[in-house]
Amino acid sequence: VVVSREASGQRSETVRRANLSTIVRELHLRGPLSRSELVGSTGLTRGAIRGLIGELAADGLVREERSAPIGTPGRPSPLVRPRPERAAVLGLDIAVDSIGAALVGFGGHVIDHVRVDRARGHLRAERIAADLARLALPLIERNDARASLIGVGVAMVGVVRLSDGLVRLAPNLGWQDVPLGELLAGRLNLGLPVTVANEADLGALAEHRRGAAVGVDDLIYLSGEVGVGGGVIVDGQPLTGAAGYAGEVGHMPVNPVGASCRCGSIGCWETEAGERALLRRAGRSGSSDRAAVDAVLAQAEGGVPKALAALRETGTWLGIGLAGLVNLFNPSLVVLGGVFGRMAPFVAGEVEAVLDQRALRGPRDVVRVIPTRLGADATLIGAAESAFEPFLVDPAAWLSPRARPLRLASA
Amino acid sequence: VVVSREASGQRSETVRRANLSTIVRELHLRGPLSRSELVGSTGLTRGAIRGLIGELAADGLVREERSAPIGTPGRPSPLVRPRPERAAVLGLDIAVDSIGAALVGFGGHVIDHVRVDRARGHLRAERIAADLARLALPLIERNDARASLIGVGVAMVGVVRLSDGLVRLAPNLGWQDVPLGELLAGRLNLGLPVTVANEADLGALAEHRRGAAVGVDDLIYLSGEVGVGGGVIVDGQPLTGAAGYAGEVGHMPVNPVGASCRCGSIGCWETEAGERALLRRAGRSGSSDRAAVDAVLAQAEGGVPKALAALRETGTWLGIGLAGLVNLFNPSLVVLGGVFGRMAPFVAGEVEAVLDQRALRGPRDVVRVIPTRLGADATLIGAAESAFEPFLVDPAAWLSPRARPLRLASA
Repeated sequence: VVVSREASGQRSETVRRANLSTIVRELHLRGPLSRSELVGSTGLTRGAIRGLIGELAADGLVREERSAPIGTPGRPSPLVRPRPERAAVLGLDIAVDSIGAALVGFGGHVIDHVRVDRARGHLRAERIAADLARLALPLIERNDARASLIGVGVAMVGVVRLSDGLVRLAPNLGWQDVPLGELLAGRLNLGLPVTVANEADLGALAEHRRGAAVGVDDLIYLSGEVGVGGGVIVDGQPLTGAAGYAGEVGHMPVNPVGASCRCGSIGCWETEAGERALLRRAGRSGSSDRAAVDAVLAQAEGGVPKALAALRETGTWLGIGLAGLVNLFNPSLVVLGGVFGRMAPFVAGEVEAVLDQRALRGPRDVVRVIPTRLGADATLIGAAESAFEPFLVDPAAWLSPRARPLRLASA
Repeated sequence: VVVSREASGQRSETVRRANLSTIVRELHLRGPLSRSELVGSTGLTRGAIRGLIGELAADGLVREERSAPIGTPGRPSPLVRPRPERAAVLGLDIAVDSIGAALVGFGGHVIDHVRVDRARGHLRAERIAADLARLALPLIERNDARASLIGVGVAMVGVVRLSDGLVRLAPNLGWQDVPLGELLAGRLNLGLPVTVANEADLGALAEHRRGAAVGVDDLIYLSGEVGVGGGVIVDGQPLTGAAGYAGEVGHMPVNPVGASCRCGSIGCWETEAGERALLRRAGRSGSSDRAAVDAVLAQAEGGVPKALAALRETGTWLGIGLAGLVNLFNPSLVVLGGVFGRMAPFVAGEVEAVLDQRALRGPRDVVRVIPTRLGADATLIGAAESAFEPFLVDPAAWLSPRARPLRLASA
């Protein structure tokens, strides 16, 4: 390859930034690693690793520590530890029953977090934005984190356009076309990018990076509160679709003569597998809150037949929709989140049986269905992870100018 | 970045191969391009392009021609033209009503092709493999293409495991767990890799590369013969899932009290939107061949009410399933292939109306539904494209050794 001197220089800089991104992503996702481990997992040379770690250390993003290996021969490779206090993000979550905020540092360390219940029902977006700011700003102040903040991610129970955080539809809140990203950026006034995404998409990201699906490249995360949401990871990447709306599994048509859905359609999966269907079957139509679901689950634990039957029927519908998703996406893992995670002990048998009957043998043979590992915090962690993404893609853009000269001096 | 001499040499070779791949892919997908266009579309330097084109020309993969631009200032940039006769693949297709073979050259030129009808019904795999070989080998001989063949791709109407071309299920042929890839490799005896994939997945690839969806990154290709198949392109890449089974859209559960499906489940989409449902509604239950469908379509063109009503009802079910797919994948394009392409003029109104009623507004707003551009040959072209893929990923592995010294001598 003949490359001119100038082009070669440009390429070097591109390569440097890409290598820095590789290392920073490894450290963020896998935690403290020795230089040898970084050589092994990135394929970069020892010399390249040394130079790049030097840059990160000069900027305070990592600290190098003597590791104390037991019984391994040779000189111990220093352990490179990400410093969460040096680069942090704010994760926010707007759920059906609560709102939450978390401060998460580089490396995935949750520095601080808070969640408060909210009554279900319609609420103006300005009010939610104000409530979230009241929750989040003290979190930043009491951890003295303003200077290290690099982004804000928001998980939202609704259909969200990724490009600008416009909420197209959020039936739980009565929202249609609400510019949530803009509202929150204004209310927080942090001078940072605010990205908004669907809560189930972020739950999938969280389970993929920090939860039940680490190392799994093809998975579906199911989230159930009032509605049924889904997040899909395809070949290691979040499925967004053309505009970020992908993964609305709750609105697969499963019953042509079914109930009206809040989305305007008929017989969507959430009308059969969602919380309201469970409560209806348990004889609690009309009630719609977490306490009612808790009561059904408590009855089921106590062996009350009507509660058990309601769970089983809901489990059958859960399995029917899952069979479709298994045939469509051929995932190796389905993670049951939200109310489905709590229902899991009572419905696992039905779900497996229906998958055996209704999914194609090929994809059926390779899929496992398991409950969430992160529980209610999956979406909050996913929101934080989404806020880290621009930093992971090009950490060089975040390094302070002083990091470069130090590196050059030592080269 | 500090890189040792040895590592730097390794990196140069890696970079050379990657750059070669970029150029070869551009030429294959976009046809003859000037060096200037290659500079523009690949981001490589003029010098790098010159060296790499020199390698390809030395190996006979491309020919450089004086271009004759009209009215453009400056020296004309030579046109680089892929030579289809130098690297070619064999595409094979096992459809419900026919089998086909095509010889396709580098750049996508169809050198020769042939398709013969076959009667519907169960047929042993050995028989199909023998028939395909009898179709394909003369095609290779009469075009004197044996020396330039680099791979074989097979489109198969069934559920296929990508890793080894095992057909898990093909109800049309009565197959279960048939090692088609192995059988065909043995029967063809070309000493070349044989990759087998689902026909709808390959139809999607073909429309994406050569048909109605060029430049579209998120699309669904629907294929209808007896069953309903689907191929999904996500962010420019084919959706395969964990084992290659993804995209089985025909087996979404849309009707819990519906008809038994050939897959063993109940009320799958293909039982309501497929060819058999159309024929049943048109009063032709029991008949199941292309002629019967042709007759319904001819009646519809002639204004026969029963045929029109059957098409409209089938169109409604087509729309119901599509609404689910639009909510799940958020594609910007849906391409109707196979029998759906032929039905399109009669069902477009129903499909659009049902999407308006049943799809979520966000994804609904960004999707268009159009008929196939490649028609019945989509799967054959897709099979050929899949066979080209290893060559496009690393063309250096296919260059004859003599190509390297020539390049070094001219450097």
